[in-house]
Amino acid sequence: MKIYVIGIGLIGGSIALDAKALYPDAKIFGIDNNENHLQEAIAIGVVDEGAVFEDLAKADFVIVSVPVDVALTLLPKVLDIVQDNTIVFDVGSTKIPICEAVENHPKRRNFIATHPIAGTEFSGPSAAIKGLFQGKTNIICEVEKTAFKLQEKALWLFNAAGMRIRYMDPKSHDKHIAYVSHLSHISSFMLGKTVIDKEKHEQDIFDMAGSGFESTVRLAKSSPAMWTPIFKQNKKQVVKTLEEYISNLSHFKELLENDDYDAIYNEMQSVNKIKEILNGMKK
Amino acid sequence: MKIYVIGIGLIGGSIALDAKALYPDAKIFGIDNNENHLQEAIAIGVVDEGAVFEDLAKADFVIVSVPVDVALTLLPKVLDIVQDNTIVFDVGSTKIPICEAVENHPKRRNFIATHPIAGTEFSGPSAAIKGLFQGKTNIICEVEKTAFKLQEKALWLFNAAGMRIRYMDPKSHDKHIAYVSHLSHISSFMLGKTVIDKEKHEQDIFDMAGSGFESTVRLAKSSPAMWTPIFKQNKKQVVKTLEEYISNLSHFKELLENDDYDAIYNEMQSVNKIKEILNGMKK
Repeated sequence: MKIYVIGIGLIGGSIALDAKALYPDAKIFGIDNNENHLQEAIAIGVVDEGAVFEDLAKADFVIVSVPVDVALTLLPKVLDIVQDNTIVFDVGSTKIPICEAVENHPKRRNFIATHPIAGTEFSGPSAAIKGLFQGKTNIICEVEKTAFKLQEKALWLFNAAGMRIRYMDPKSHDKHIAYVSHLSHISSFMLGKTVIDKEKHEQDIFDMAGSGFESTVRLAKSSPAMWTPIFKQNKKQVVKTLEEYISNLSHFKELLENDDYDAIYNEMQSVNKIKEILNGMKK
Repeated sequence: MKIYVIGIGLIGGSIALDAKALYPDAKIFGIDNNENHLQEAIAIGVVDEGAVFEDLAKADFVIVSVPVDVALTLLPKVLDIVQDNTIVFDVGSTKIPICEAVENHPKRRNFIATHPIAGTEFSGPSAAIKGLFQGKTNIICEVEKTAFKLQEKALWLFNAAGMRIRYMDPKSHDKHIAYVSHLSHISSFMLGKTVIDKEKHEQDIFDMAGSGFESTVRLAKSSPAMWTPIFKQNKKQVVKTLEEYISNLSHFKELLENDDYDAIYNEMQSVNKIKEILNGMKK
């Protein structure tokens, strides 16, 4: 079997590592427009060897793990070149634009739109982790538009990699993911900014930062090249979540300004149930 | 040696565990107005036995680890009862009100104001961790107001527990800590609220939450009883950090509404240097 991974970063590289373990006889090829990343991926054994775009004509699997703006133009070209029995999937954090980009493609049935919700704040091939997807949710959109036999092929890989599959329409995906992923990234980036802006004048401030700050600001290490097109493609939903978040923060500030500490206590107590919700996530 | 810990939660309990290891001959007494917590602390070996307030007359060390509003009224009473060679310290996340509360006390020299920046989102005696303070910063305020011999006694314990000591005036402490700790907690609580409010109508949303959301929202599990008085006592600084944070979020939202993706990229890229700053924290 020939598996091609386009974009050998954290997600593409992690899928490559799992695929290698799950299909011992397969050859894993990497395609990346960053030649350093490709060489690094080969050197550290994330992929077996490099390949060029034209090689996709020989592929059994094509995994497209590139920034979502690149995916919009790349996916139709990938579908143009692959054979009838090839399954192509993307892993992007937005689903409406990607599903629209291939909607009328003659080989639409060779494509399955997915979003494995896994990762770290790091990027590049060295960030790839074998087993990253164990117990993680993979959202699959418009599954009915993929040929049944090719669905099976992709799902075997997803299940064998330990993913929990959930089916969802692209609109619901993009709406919900704005809350539980896109907003978290912006809250973290802007928290980092607020503190860094201050630090210009106050060098000592970071000696006072503890593990709480570190946890809250972790996502501010994420790649702007990956996240800018995500925010662009999911603009409407992201703006809405930001409005709600800013409104909640402003309300909290007003309670503080009005010395309404009972209300502040109650606000925090009602959010404490996030404990149970997060525990539920792990089940 | 007799060591008394008032308030056997995460911080008080962790200090008790370290003290026990560092002073093998000492007896560690616990005082807590939550009788269940006290019994639990004894049962799991966080303290040796329970005590009552009047026993503090026999103390060598008194550690006051209670919510900061309780500390304001409790600390003067503790100083009233202790002997001349007793060292008393608090561990609160606000320093101006606490230093003011004991400013004119005849036994002010028996007190040292500290803030060990360590912890988790959990509370109660079962949350205590031996070695919690290893490599963590402990801010000491107004050290010159503590008797030199008693400073030495406290510093031996702090150093032996692995703390990095930094001296700071209470005003600087309260200002900086608002940025690197208090604001993180509010950003996390309000992120949790924004998502929970949504979840009322959308049951499935949390299946889509990944480790990024979990990290960003971790502090929203924190205790409202501990945090409400902190926000109250540091109101002015917390309001200021919230204003700056809300302003940064609103600016980001405007950039998105205006489709200024170059500026969004640059915003995120400039915050990426938080990587180096966080790495520096660990040195």
